[in-house]
Amino acid sequence: MEQSSKSAFAKQVSKSRLEFLFDGVFAIAMTLMVLELKVPELQNRLSAHELGAALLHHGRTFFSYILSFFALSMFWMVHNRIYINLKKISNTCLAIHIWLLAVAAFFPFCAHLLGKFPGNRLTLQIYFGTVFAYFFGIFLLIIAAEKQKLFDPAVEAKDIRKLRNRFLRSCVIILTAFVFYSFFPFGK
Amino acid sequence: MEQSSKSAFAKQVSKSRLEFLFDGVFAIAMTLMVLELKVPELQNRLSAHELGAALLHHGRTFFSYILSFFALSMFWMVHNRIYINLKKISNTCLAIHIWLLAVAAFFPFCAHLLGKFPGNRLTLQIYFGTVFAYFFGIFLLIIAAEKQKLFDPAVEAKDIRKLRNRFLRSCVIILTAFVFYSFFPFGK
Amino acid sequence: MEQSSKSAFAKQVSKSRLEFLFDGVFAIAMTLMVLELKVPELQNRLSAHELGAALLHHGRTFFSYILSFFALSMFWMVHNRIYINLKKISNTCLAIHIWLLAVAAFFPFCAHLLGKFPGNRLTLQIYFGTVFAYFFGIFLLIIAAEKQKLFDPAVEAKDIRKLRNRFLRSCVIILTAFVFYSFFPFGK
Amino acid sequence: MEQSSKSAFAKQVSKSRLEFLFDGVFAIAMTLMVLELKVPELQNRLSAHELGAALLHHGRTFFSYILSFFALSMFWMVHNRIYINLKKISNTCLAIHIWLLAVAAFFPFCAHLLGKFPGNRLTLQIYFGTVFAYFFGIFLLIIAAEKQKLFDPAVEAKDIRKLRNRFLRSCVIILTAFVFYSFFPFGK
Repeated sequence: MEQSSKSAFAKQVSKSRLEFLFDGVFAIAMTLMVLELKVPELQNRLSAHELGAALLHHGRTFFSYILSFFALSMFWMVHNRIYINLKKISNTCLAIHIWLLAVAAFFPFCAHLLGKFPGNRLTLQIYFGTVFAYFFGIFLLIIAAEKQKLFDPAVEAKDIRKLRNRFLRSCVIILTAFVFYSFFPFGK
Repeated sequence: MEQSSKSAFAKQVSKSRLEFLFDGVFAIAMTLMVLELKVPELQNRLSAHELGAALLHHGRTFFSYILSFFALSMFWMVHNRIYINLKKISNTCLAIHIWLLAVAAFFPFCAHLLGKFPGNRLTLQIYFGTVFAYFFGIFLLIIAAEKQKLFDPAVEAKDIRKLRNRFLRSCVIILTAFVFYSFFPFGK
Repeated sequence: MEQSSKSAFAKQVSKSRLEFLFDGVFAIAMTLMVLELKVPELQNRLSAHELGAALLHHGRTFFSYILSFFALSMFWMVHNRIYINLKKISNTCLAIHIWLLAVAAFFPFCAHLLGKFPGNRLTLQIYFGTVFAYFFGIFLLIIAAEKQKLFDPAVEAKDIRKLRNRFLRSCVIILTAFVFYSFFPFGK
Repeated sequence: MEQSSKSAFAKQVSKSRLEFLFDGVFAIAMTLMVLELKVPELQNRLSAHELGAALLHHGRTFFSYILSFFALSMFWMVHNRIYINLKKISNTCLAIHIWLLAVAAFFPFCAHLLGKFPGNRLTLQIYFGTVFAYFFGIFLLIIAAEKQKLFDPAVEAKDIRKLRNRFLRSCVIILTAFVFYSFFPFGK
């Protein structure tokens, strides 16, 4: 009796709405980065040469935009691959999603930082730290979903284990690169 | 006869579309706040130390961003928990949603204000006032849905009552904190 | 034979995707307006009095924001009421939607204009002209949907006629106000 | 056995989520362009004449906004017409979508460039280059979907061929115009 009244009053978040919010934040984060691409000022408005030079001068901003766009796309795809196999959303799972969204919304800032100070060591630490924060969140999501049996029952346990190990590996690689880069005393 | 012609010409808003608009506004409000995080200017572009100091100097902006991001997430979750149990949308209910959306869209401004003037008493009044405005809106939504029988019939009345009382309590707590903070003569 | 091959290769736009795009543009337009609300600069960062005065000084920007937010909400609701009764989307109908979206995306600019030059006659002409452009688009949408039989067959013709007449009336009222305001020689 | 375990653990991206992301990016790109429309500064705040002159002075920005809005709408419609006939999404197909999204997100920058330097030859090269990049992406999408049999089986092969040829033609026309414009020695 109690059981059925519980199931009538839905307490969890609907899976499709979390999807909308997630995809919305990613769509905006991806498009926001373009705002940083500033149209330059020219002395001779008709000179293609001057415009080209001005744009090339901002070349690294463009590069950072493209790199970060593809990084965000990869983030989105990675999440997609896990989410499609989930059957329901628990509170832990929701909290991890908020974390993932906060990281994704923060990413355009990292992209701007990289565009402006590409050679600065702290910039790269922040950039890779953010990438690590995302991948680690995904890793936690897999663990939580496994523990709380949120995966579709039709999905075999070994597929989940393989997925989890792949993400653990990614996290370790990013972290190693990060630590190595941070403490190895090259340059300044 | 009249009844059936009425039901053919749908007069209410579709539940799923209000959901899209709602989730869209939240996704944008959450991501817009990052625009306020400005990349600092540096004298030595390669100095990690200078960049770190510049970012730390804006530490409270970051803190305000994180706090407001989680506040907006909580707003979204709270709405979700009620919306999932509604069966249809009335006009009153729609008006309350417009109110909730206006508050949510206004929230990034509060976050900027908090990031810039964290010690100012008016800032905190506006911030908490906005939080109160949202929770009060949710409370009205529950009342309206209860009166107009918009909840899923499978949901038991005592669950709704419990939910309503919980929100009433939240509103009273926020309001008390707000009034206490506003009139208690500490500092200036 | 030809008929069936035509129906297999879908040529029209999916109704749900046009909905996503529409709701997305509205969600963004509604939230973008808040970007114009600038956090003021203060001499004494802790003075609630100075902050209050600075915000009040921008009072008309806030007023314009609130007014335009509700105008956009109304635009969205009005569209909703028609769209929910459509069964499919024709090319004419799609073109009218592009028009409606262009008007909605332009609306934040009108809101900024109103916030900055509320007393300027041209501002109000542009503002009301935009409102008229939207309502006229909705009116055309009803006409086109009626001509091309896009409404759900269950909807009775008299309901559609009533709806159309209501919008025609709205258009005429807005246009009259607009013309009257534009040519009546008061003030300057 | 292996076959069924493969189908249980979904590896592809859900078609509807790619749709959300796509429509989200387009909605934002369309609305972002309006941010470039700056409210002018006036000496006499009440002078409709001065405001009109100031807005007319930015006439080409408005023109560029309108043109680019309709270009983006066309991009969206073109994609829609193909996507609605797809049955599933492969990895190649996903990669092409990321490309299309990157181009769409970049488009507001092109619009700003056109608004600011309409007479500059490089501006038009970038603008048309971006349009070409989008159409070429759509062309690749059709080829990939044809090769990997992603189209709905009910769609006849000759309809797909017709569609593909139409896009090939569009690509060739844009490319010819682009090359002709770039190398023909008129003006400077």
